Amino acid sequence: MESSERLDCPSPFECRWARVPAGASVIDPSRLPSGFRAAGVPAGIKPSGRSDFALLVSDAEDTVSAARFTASSAPAAPVQLCRTRVELGRIRACVVNSGNANAATGKVGLENAFYMQGAAAMACGVPEAQVAVASTGVIGRQLDRRLLAGGGASAARQLDHANALAFAEAICTTDRWIKAGSLEVALGGGKVVLSAQVKGAGMIAPAHVPHATLLAFIETDAVLEERQADDMLGSAVKGSFDRVSVDGQLSTNDSVFLLANGASGVAAEPGTADEDTLREALEELLSALALSLVRDGEGAGRIGRIDVVGGDPDACERVARAVADSPLVKTALAGGDPNWGRIIQAAGMALATGRPEPIDVIIEGVPVATAGIAESIDLAGLERAVDRSEVEYSVRIPGQGHQAVVYFSDLGHDYVSLNAEYTT
Amino acid sequence: MESSERLDCPSPFECRWARVPAGASVIDPSRLPSGFRAAGVPAGIKPSGRSDFALLVSDAEDTVSAARFTASSAPAAPVQLCRTRVELGRIRACVVNSGNANAATGKVGLENAFYMQGAAAMACGVPEAQVAVASTGVIGRQLDRRLLAGGGASAARQLDHANALAFAEAICTTDRWIKAGSLEVALGGGKVVLSAQVKGAGMIAPAHVPHATLLAFIETDAVLEERQADDMLGSAVKGSFDRVSVDGQLSTNDSVFLLANGASGVAAEPGTADEDTLREALEELLSALALSLVRDGEGAGRIGRIDVVGGDPDACERVARAVADSPLVKTALAGGDPNWGRIIQAAGMALATGRPEPIDVIIEGVPVATAGIAESIDLAGLERAVDRSEVEYSVRIPGQGHQAVVYFSDLGHDYVSLNAEYTT
Repeated sequence: MESSERLDCPSPFECRWARVPAGASVIDPSRLPSGFRAAGVPAGIKPSGRSDFALLVSDAEDTVSAARFTASSAPAAPVQLCRTRVELGRIRACVVNSGNANAATGKVGLENAFYMQGAAAMACGVPEAQVAVASTGVIGRQLDRRLLAGGGASAARQLDHANALAFAEAICTTDRWIKAGSLEVALGGGKVVLSAQVKGAGMIAPAHVPHATLLAFIETDAVLEERQADDMLGSAVKGSFDRVSVDGQLSTNDSVFLLANGASGVAAEPGTADEDTLREALEELLSALALSLVRDGEGAGRIGRIDVVGGDPDACERVARAVADSPLVKTALAGGDPNWGRIIQAAGMALATGRPEPIDVIIEGVPVATAGIAESIDLAGLERAVDRSEVEYSVRIPGQGHQAVVYFSDLGHDYVSLNAEYTT
Repeated sequence: MESSERLDCPSPFECRWARVPAGASVIDPSRLPSGFRAAGVPAGIKPSGRSDFALLVSDAEDTVSAARFTASSAPAAPVQLCRTRVELGRIRACVVNSGNANAATGKVGLENAFYMQGAAAMACGVPEAQVAVASTGVIGRQLDRRLLAGGGASAARQLDHANALAFAEAICTTDRWIKAGSLEVALGGGKVVLSAQVKGAGMIAPAHVPHATLLAFIETDAVLEERQADDMLGSAVKGSFDRVSVDGQLSTNDSVFLLANGASGVAAEPGTADEDTLREALEELLSALALSLVRDGEGAGRIGRIDVVGGDPDACERVARAVADSPLVKTALAGGDPNWGRIIQAAGMALATGRPEPIDVIIEGVPVATAGIAESIDLAGLERAVDRSEVEYSVRIPGQGHQAVVYFSDLGHDYVSLNAEYTT
């Protein structure tokens, strides 16, 4: 099942919580960093006939890369293939299909993933072991190899530097809009470009382990070392995709790839301020796109930010996730209802000490409960305050010094319609 | 918010998964075991003017009791009061209000709970420390003491042996029907009666700790020792209320009480077959009522049973709960969609080993995935098989010898409407 009308790519930095870091500027997301080419074409995998086959290639042989995958015990065939048959630090090409997850497909599914990898390798002139494979769509159906072969050939002909949005569109499934963004970042030795294309609507949750939680492709022309790329990707994923929750569900297919081709000739040497700058830019770019994912959570109307401060980092994390994943909080967010009782209930459940704990709840800057006790509030004023597309909740639990933040989508009728009425 | 039309009490044993144990028979749920009296009256707490104040009294001074409470760190005032000011093994009366949870109400809330306890003690002629208090309803609003006093006096006048359903109705909030059941159980020394009245629609989840997860009152005229009552209640709660999930939310107010007054003169001596018989009857009665709760999950249409078998009990439990709490599985259940991909996804997420695990999925007896791989299935036949009000899912994970079962409600438009459009 896919979105019926897909919108053009909005700027991911238009969100209240997104930030363009100092020294960086937002640039046209349709152009890849130099030395990268991409394509997105219809290969006939989606019954709708829409774009469903994507290819990304780095021209430089010495491209370095890093990857993260789902922690699921039911990983899709392409994830299994990437883990076992791809040099994850030397990826030069990514081949992706949407419309079929190639998950729960057994040996035939693995063979199809190999076939997809081989077809892309041939089409791009890149060794097979340097071609990563990703899939997204329906679980439990076999891909049609002839479509893969045709898609590979067609995509190879379309490869172009300015095709980032066609690539981003071809990886979409239930996404209501294309998600991509680019930053130009000034380093000591000159400017580098960071670009990313992302998909994901339902089945998104923080893996809470060093694994990814969606489909994302990041390209940069900066000069990076392999270990540095891996380290940067790991920390950026933790600070971005691992902090969002649409429905608390971890997918069988989540994969994130970072490719750095060094085409700019500008390095971000390990341990330097340049590295920090680039790392921050990467995290902010992925955070902005993660927020776009949350906003596009299947059927989402509003999005929320829960921030929890306390003395125990695990407790902060548990409370933040309990609030973000509570269907009661999510439905209240959808309804524009400042129902703080549900926040304190979720926090109480997550702490589960059995004893009353002094929990503070603040909604849009208004203290609504202090030390677990309701404040006298101007309810009409609070209702106006939460009647916005992005709502902020804060919880204070005992102690201080630690903070956990999670962004989450609401739960409205559209989520139910999308998920109850179609096999997605 | 409350249900607009409350239905009469259906038999909780009509469910596919409920069972009347051997030696027991279902009897009229409106009559309490001998020596118990109850009442339910409107006290003006609910703006609708419906019944919202309930009283239960055991006439015997030597009544023994047991109780379980929410593990929440935001326990409501009545829960705090019961824990600190009630002799939990010697409860002779329970006073309950609906329409207001008396949670997040601080010192004034505690004083109101004391006041409620005192009013009931006076009305029933029972020492304060033997009066338990429970509340359910909106969080964060103070009770009006004048209404409590009036309710206590009015309920005391109505106390009657045949008032179990009036009691059960007065404790309801969003419940669509009254939940009560009674069994007559044959023991060696004669017959005893077990009765229970339960409420709870949203905010129900297994606490997974020796605490309760809803509002339930159980009476028996069997002769029990205090420790025996506690032990029986604990194991029955684990096998019933701890195995159901409506929305994965633990409430601030969950409380379960068992009162045994010995009026039958029939004992179930510890360590005897009689004790086993009574224990089983209690667990089956509470299981049947727990299933009624799930069916009445806020806005629920269909209900599901997930049973997981494997070699690691924790893994079985995690997988069962991940399936039961998955909004993707719940929406598929609501839509009559045999979407087994979502079952395998939830199982894979719960195991989270990163490696492919041989997971089997069986829906209504039909193997749909074996060792993680899709089976060729008759989809139309499977769609017919799941188009029923009670659907069975089974998952097999590696190993054997352990099983976890959870019952869950679906997630449909009515859940969203109920929770997005009203402050409950």
